Amino acid sequence: MFRTAELGQKLSKEEYKRIEPDLRFELHELQRKTRSLGKYPVIIVLAGVDGGGKGDTVKILNEWMDARWVINRAYRPASDEEKERPRFWRYWRDLPPRGQIGLFMSAWYSSPVVDYAHRKISRDELDRHLEQIENFENALADDGALILKFWMHLSRDAQKKRFKSLEKDPDRKWEVNKRDWDNWKRYDQFIEAAERTIMRTNTGKAAWNIIEGSDNRYRRITIGTILRDAMQKKLNAMKNQSAPTLTAGSDISGEQGGEAASLTVFSGLDMAKGLDRNMYKSELRKFQAKMNHLTRKGLKQEMSTIVVFEGPDAAGKGGAIRRVISALDPHHYQILPFAAPTEEERAQHYLWRFWRHLSRAGDVTIFDRSWYGRVLVERVEGFATNAEWQRAYAEINDFEQQLVEHNIVLIKFWVHITKEEQLRRFQEREKTPHKSWKLTDEDWRNREKWDLYSAAAHDMIQYTSTQSAPWVIVEGNDKYYARVKTIRTVCDYLTQALDR
Amino acid sequence: MFRTAELGQKLSKEEYKRIEPDLRFELHELQRKTRSLGKYPVIIVLAGVDGGGKGDTVKILNEWMDARWVINRAYRPASDEEKERPRFWRYWRDLPPRGQIGLFMSAWYSSPVVDYAHRKISRDELDRHLEQIENFENALADDGALILKFWMHLSRDAQKKRFKSLEKDPDRKWEVNKRDWDNWKRYDQFIEAAERTIMRTNTGKAAWNIIEGSDNRYRRITIGTILRDAMQKKLNAMKNQSAPTLTAGSDISGEQGGEAASLTVFSGLDMAKGLDRNMYKSELRKFQAKMNHLTRKGLKQEMSTIVVFEGPDAAGKGGAIRRVISALDPHHYQILPFAAPTEEERAQHYLWRFWRHLSRAGDVTIFDRSWYGRVLVERVEGFATNAEWQRAYAEINDFEQQLVEHNIVLIKFWVHITKEEQLRRFQEREKTPHKSWKLTDEDWRNREKWDLYSAAAHDMIQYTSTQSAPWVIVEGNDKYYARVKTIRTVCDYLTQALDR
Repeated sequence: MFRTAELGQKLSKEEYKRIEPDLRFELHELQRKTRSLGKYPVIIVLAGVDGGGKGDTVKILNEWMDARWVINRAYRPASDEEKERPRFWRYWRDLPPRGQIGLFMSAWYSSPVVDYAHRKISRDELDRHLEQIENFENALADDGALILKFWMHLSRDAQKKRFKSLEKDPDRKWEVNKRDWDNWKRYDQFIEAAERTIMRTNTGKAAWNIIEGSDNRYRRITIGTILRDAMQKKLNAMKNQSAPTLTAGSDISGEQGGEAASLTVFSGLDMAKGLDRNMYKSELRKFQAKMNHLTRKGLKQEMSTIVVFEGPDAAGKGGAIRRVISALDPHHYQILPFAAPTEEERAQHYLWRFWRHLSRAGDVTIFDRSWYGRVLVERVEGFATNAEWQRAYAEINDFEQQLVEHNIVLIKFWVHITKEEQLRRFQEREKTPHKSWKLTDEDWRNREKWDLYSAAAHDMIQYTSTQSAPWVIVEGNDKYYARVKTIRTVCDYLTQALDR
Repeated sequence: MFRTAELGQKLSKEEYKRIEPDLRFELHELQRKTRSLGKYPVIIVLAGVDGGGKGDTVKILNEWMDARWVINRAYRPASDEEKERPRFWRYWRDLPPRGQIGLFMSAWYSSPVVDYAHRKISRDELDRHLEQIENFENALADDGALILKFWMHLSRDAQKKRFKSLEKDPDRKWEVNKRDWDNWKRYDQFIEAAERTIMRTNTGKAAWNIIEGSDNRYRRITIGTILRDAMQKKLNAMKNQSAPTLTAGSDISGEQGGEAASLTVFSGLDMAKGLDRNMYKSELRKFQAKMNHLTRKGLKQEMSTIVVFEGPDAAGKGGAIRRVISALDPHHYQILPFAAPTEEERAQHYLWRFWRHLSRAGDVTIFDRSWYGRVLVERVEGFATNAEWQRAYAEINDFEQQLVEHNIVLIKFWVHITKEEQLRRFQEREKTPHKSWKLTDEDWRNREKWDLYSAAAHDMIQYTSTQSAPWVIVEGNDKYYARVKTIRTVCDYLTQALDR
């Protein structure tokens, strides 16, 4: 794989001087245009063998472009706050907003390659890791990001020569340390790991460029040229692209046509389920005590819990949440209500705002509405294109998979009510003075789209009820029953997780 | 001080049942109105002796109000990311945005009281710490925040009784641990520390309420009532308050009247200072090598550096920044350009967006424009009221003091050019095709206000050039001279800091 990067490619000083000024000017202009368009981020990954010129590349790109709008990201060992979240959290939080350029040094490629070269992880673990990388990059690319990956290569001999020459330079000998030489001794394993990594993550959406690293001038001009062409191509593509047609609620009934919408996963529910007040009170007390006990135990084990609440307006999500939290230590829970994203959130992939809110180890986080907005309200109201909400199922499954693999207890509730019960509750809210503020025109408008929302919820449950993160549907017509089922389910999940 | 909180105040079950429903309803309504107004945050601090009911208070307030819009903040020992920033960083990042309510458990009061009770800090250190708290709370209150502080008190005997009774309850005995009993043995020292703390931080803008903690019902109703009244009063005050008169550039010439504006700190500068090209090249090379060396040493010692650049348009800030960074390891610097704040930033105190960007230990952060916008552009353009920008000097001095005390090397550059030189550069930009985008209508508009900006810069330098964070004025008419002076100054600061 690296043969073509061991040819000894060079560029003369004269050639460099001839090419560099224009290239620099063009890159600067392209950066400015990308920024003023503000539609997508540019993500540049610089990886490869030590001494291959990663550092020099970051430096020259910062010189050629306006460094104020370039975000440089290099990674030290994970901080404790980073260790308490899934592996990709640190990369998500570092992503450049639309219009800006992020330079990532090794970043998500560092640990798979190094760990596999040192045989700290198995081949299967490597592959699993690379699959996550692919999903991560795909999600960003699908959202519009321009992703460019450069692998700087040096042959074993060239690397040795490079280290030796650095060591001779009194100003730069600090750049080579014992770890570099140790790695050099494992050159072959390192290259093997790199090959597999590049092979598996070389996708159409985020392709690798293998660059011969030994000659500074050649490397700089080659990378600069590839970057220039890609940025130009992307800008052209954006110009020629007509705005995506957002047809609210289109395709909603899927393959099966209009008929299917009426028969959903909710059709089979026994919505008559109920609980009398005395039973409710005693059950609630029982499970709240149990949950208090379980969450304290969970905290000691640094076990994090995420509880997601979705459901129609007036389904009783708020009431259920109140019963759950009243059993919890207020030091260690957080409720996160989600409505429209903020300006900073809109400048990122839609999952970014959920990643940013993942809490520290041991805490219970309650999401009052969540990332599922993408396939519910954004689908039905046409805020997301068909392509966007359709690929969101896989993106969400992958996101949740990462939570579960990080040993976070993930519980997803769909609190369901019938259309008739919703009407009854709306009317009650209208009549009760201190509740009337709860009811808005939007609620009535959403109600008109009941069938569209039902179909969207049906698809959501179908596509995102996975083995590791199944949906729990709560029959919500009777509030007592719903609240007890919710809290009992949380207890069940916690018990199971603590027994693991 | 705590006599009145040892009276054995109680509330009967009947009284509680009579008062609670209305209080709860009112609090809920007030929360809703505060949120829909969205003009100021409510910051509630709950502190006091263990067993005094801090936890119960958080719980009941979350029950009474809409818990989704209450932010609960409790603090564990600082994470490594928190330790790498000044002490108040963790509190700044947790502040509720305007319209929301934050419940802070002990928070910034925990370490001064506990550390002084255990004599880990001296009385002087305690006082210094309390002064910082006062500045912090004043800054928030001046920005509109409603701050309520509750100190839950128990007498020595009442605390012992409380612990004993908790230990007897199998469901709650975990709430008492060895540390609690150890603290109880130091009750008198603890109370002494608390008294001094309350005394010194009991300000008109953020007053303490001392609450007798032994009876749950009494405590809840007392706190709820105080909170209700304060929230109501604040809402009324906001309603009656007419919009502040924003008069652009008013008061600009200060006490001295119009004449004074022409004689500024810039009048005495020798703007003819220059450097020839050869000298420039050799000096630049020399200092860049030196800086590279110094920053590597700084990184090893986890020394952080913040470099602030301010100055008129076209003064050459960008060029100076480029020369500084080209000497740095791209792994460890970040340039932060500041223009208009984002939506999330506008919902917070103006310093919040600078606090949030303080980087991890060892890094160099370059602020291309900064918190000084408050007393420059915001003052001149009338984006801040007179009261706002006038109090900003002290707020900024306090902020920088915290940076310096955290051993961050802080360097502030005012890159100055004359009005004639600015015109020359504007005209040159106009004529040069690849530079013309740099020049906007706004630049011309700002230029018309040259004298107002000069006067604002003069005041800024006067009021914020402190012993620990002086301004460095760079004569910028000659770019070569300015760049070398900048980088030489950075070297001087780093050398001095490393010798400490």
